[in-house]
Amino acid sequence: MLSRAARQPRAALSAVRCASSISSQEPAGPSMKTAVPGPKSLAIKEKMDPIHQTTSVRMFVDFEKSFGNYVVDADGNTMLDVYTQISSLPLGYNHPDLVKAASNPNFITSLVSRPALGSFPRNDFPDGIEAALTSIAPKGLKAVQTMLCGTSANENAIKTAFIWYMTNRRGGNPPDKKALDTAMLQQEPGTPHLSVLGFQGAFHGRSLCMLSVTRSKAVHKVDIPAFDWPIAKYPRYKYPLKDNKEYNAAQDKESLQDVREKIAEWKKKNHDVAAVIVEPIQAEGGDNYGSPEFFHELQKICKENGVCFIVDEVQTGGGGTGQFWAHSHWNLPTPPDIVTFSKKLITGGYFYGEHMRVKEAYRIYNTWMGDPSKLFLLQKVVEVIKRDNLVEKTKEVGKYFQQELNRLQSAHSSIFSQARGMGTFAAIDLPNAGIRDLFVTKAIDSGLHCGGCGEKSVRFRPALIYGKKHAEITFDILEKAVKQI
Amino acid sequence: MLSRAARQPRAALSAVRCASSISSQEPAGPSMKTAVPGPKSLAIKEKMDPIHQTTSVRMFVDFEKSFGNYVVDADGNTMLDVYTQISSLPLGYNHPDLVKAASNPNFITSLVSRPALGSFPRNDFPDGIEAALTSIAPKGLKAVQTMLCGTSANENAIKTAFIWYMTNRRGGNPPDKKALDTAMLQQEPGTPHLSVLGFQGAFHGRSLCMLSVTRSKAVHKVDIPAFDWPIAKYPRYKYPLKDNKEYNAAQDKESLQDVREKIAEWKKKNHDVAAVIVEPIQAEGGDNYGSPEFFHELQKICKENGVCFIVDEVQTGGGGTGQFWAHSHWNLPTPPDIVTFSKKLITGGYFYGEHMRVKEAYRIYNTWMGDPSKLFLLQKVVEVIKRDNLVEKTKEVGKYFQQELNRLQSAHSSIFSQARGMGTFAAIDLPNAGIRDLFVTKAIDSGLHCGGCGEKSVRFRPALIYGKKHAEITFDILEKAVKQI
Repeated sequence: MLSRAARQPRAALSAVRCASSISSQEPAGPSMKTAVPGPKSLAIKEKMDPIHQTTSVRMFVDFEKSFGNYVVDADGNTMLDVYTQISSLPLGYNHPDLVKAASNPNFITSLVSRPALGSFPRNDFPDGIEAALTSIAPKGLKAVQTMLCGTSANENAIKTAFIWYMTNRRGGNPPDKKALDTAMLQQEPGTPHLSVLGFQGAFHGRSLCMLSVTRSKAVHKVDIPAFDWPIAKYPRYKYPLKDNKEYNAAQDKESLQDVREKIAEWKKKNHDVAAVIVEPIQAEGGDNYGSPEFFHELQKICKENGVCFIVDEVQTGGGGTGQFWAHSHWNLPTPPDIVTFSKKLITGGYFYGEHMRVKEAYRIYNTWMGDPSKLFLLQKVVEVIKRDNLVEKTKEVGKYFQQELNRLQSAHSSIFSQARGMGTFAAIDLPNAGIRDLFVTKAIDSGLHCGGCGEKSVRFRPALIYGKKHAEITFDILEKAVKQI
Repeated sequence: MLSRAARQPRAALSAVRCASSISSQEPAGPSMKTAVPGPKSLAIKEKMDPIHQTTSVRMFVDFEKSFGNYVVDADGNTMLDVYTQISSLPLGYNHPDLVKAASNPNFITSLVSRPALGSFPRNDFPDGIEAALTSIAPKGLKAVQTMLCGTSANENAIKTAFIWYMTNRRGGNPPDKKALDTAMLQQEPGTPHLSVLGFQGAFHGRSLCMLSVTRSKAVHKVDIPAFDWPIAKYPRYKYPLKDNKEYNAAQDKESLQDVREKIAEWKKKNHDVAAVIVEPIQAEGGDNYGSPEFFHELQKICKENGVCFIVDEVQTGGGGTGQFWAHSHWNLPTPPDIVTFSKKLITGGYFYGEHMRVKEAYRIYNTWMGDPSKLFLLQKVVEVIKRDNLVEKTKEVGKYFQQELNRLQSAHSSIFSQARGMGTFAAIDLPNAGIRDLFVTKAIDSGLHCGGCGEKSVRFRPALIYGKKHAEITFDILEKAVKQI
């Protein structure tokens, strides 16, 4: 097994133009030598600890030996990876097309002579934007702004919303002298008391601003000051959906009513809600879904109140749900005002409606404004996704995955509940956090690299090259793991 | 001239192991064909505008043709670059050693299979940290945390300070149940009312948190809500320093008194100052310096008040001042608690004292926690800086640069004032913003790519491969430009 895995890097360096060959170059299945982390991972951890924090390191990874859907750790354990670097590898490890793209001289120039994109972009930057991003733009949204990561995408989406809100308040005019002068003193009107509405269970990043609307886990937030911004209830559905229609509709209603009340309450205290930010699926928070009806109504509330509707697709964007954008499943009558992305999209950034455009220079700005080398890789990722029809394939494999997840749950109904998902983006609950953690450990030690989310859920985030064969292995291991707890 | 520039990319692709050859491969000097931006830049801008903001784009750059200290734009204008992508290119354009490093297969793997570094780092990540960062660590600081950019470095440095402050308040204990529960509700004690003290004229980034301590320009801040955190006066010296000792000492005294008062004032309203964040040179804010005495006393005030002392070296770190870290010029009795970096360091991040270490997992965390491909390039940058003795050389060239800057000022004393700098990190003032902007335009159109900072300053930020020959060309052009205004 190891010798096979050890051969992968050489194989990876020769570009192979057909997706099915990824599968043929992969290990036949997982192969475990030690528990995870093994002794080699632990030794590296000990070495690193004095110079860089190691508290959250699960294992060290041999990225050169990892290939396709399989991750190989420092101890030579080969695991089927359904966690994919926290949902961030669209095409798995060492995809031959990406390896080939990375030797392009223009790509190398982008890496070693990095532009300050806001002021001095590459000649071919518009072509890159067009090929990598315009071609996958959510329906109805044309303009895009690249950023470095999901947090900076969300931060700048929110800044864009604030600027739009204040511009509307000024009847479309740019800031006047009084606004500029008072902004330097952090007084009104230049520094307004606006707010952003988030949801219980949400995760939008860990900067101080984003933590103010992030409510997934206390450990993210404790000891950190926050803005006093409103948080509304998020629906918490019972599954299967078809058997819980009434309960779930009541969840929607309660949440929407809370949104209306919070917007009114913050308006009353002169801290107007300028934006609502929401994930299509609260991913870090435990894979909590909202129904299409919920989002239709939420968008309507935003429109009625002149509030910007921001959909955070950092974890859901990129095809895992069986559509490139998770919010496409809702069929909204008009597009969201802003859609943010990162992770599987390689570069961070956000799409926005033309009415959201910031007209003045240097307001949405920073030194790097993204990274053209990430855009270059995304261009290739998008090309491969289209060429190999990977979103459609994920939708198909997803049907099998969801069916098997429900079968697993039925077979072990005292352990599992709330099986849910779209495409291969899926989760299931265990009785409590302790049992969930034990189950994840057993699954990993049996060769399936997965992870938790929320209070007691396990999340599945395979790459887009994950096929039925991989799903079969996944459920074999889950069966094995559940018998060990 | 163009044909020479056009040959550079091929030359750049063959690694040449000697720094002097950079100079021999460079153009002999600038060569201008059009005003900047020229018609080709304008055409690309028009093409990009519908899909990506272009308001702050100065020109489009032909990065393939740019080499060493010379940037070539879309119109074939070859300019000596003393702005270097906002002070972010340590070794100029297409440095042969970096181009060679970028074809390393491990580097390519890092790019195409990007790790979530906080949980699944590469096997060789500690080696990379050691070679790239431990080897350049500020005196007395051992541990480092990588991040993606300067803003995220500062955000996480501040979070580290908050956690440290609250841990001290708890007598060294981790957060208890009450703290964790109240953090989810954003109430005390879990969400404390702590603050960070910044300075007038400071720039620390553009996230909402960092904007709360950024006070360089109103356009960065207007319409964006902020934390009510204290801002103290920063010294504003008169130059030359030797003729203004008394005035400048009074500036220090006034600023330090303001810091003491603001710390007391915010403590009184139960919004304790947990950290002071300060740049060694306020770079975006107009190249405003503090004296070593000022920083000694500032650190003392922090220690007396149990406040974390954060030095933001995002623009000053990396050798431009003639020392690798600008704060080394101060000879502090003990190191700062945290030193943040980015730009010339390729990766963002911060060094911190052992007492600042966050002990619990997932508190300083995000998906990517930096980027090993940037660390890999930094490793090569550091190797080249050491091999070619570039910081020492910059110090030497800097002496010549400062002498010439003062000569230029004396020759045109009605236009220039306040010539100042360390190493090749330098600035000079013009009578007002309008004349400054005109002067920058004339210099660029004469072949010197430079930029403004603060209200009416021009800043110089050459790469570390900038030599006496380049300085001579620089001052020839500045002489030419000043005659056109």
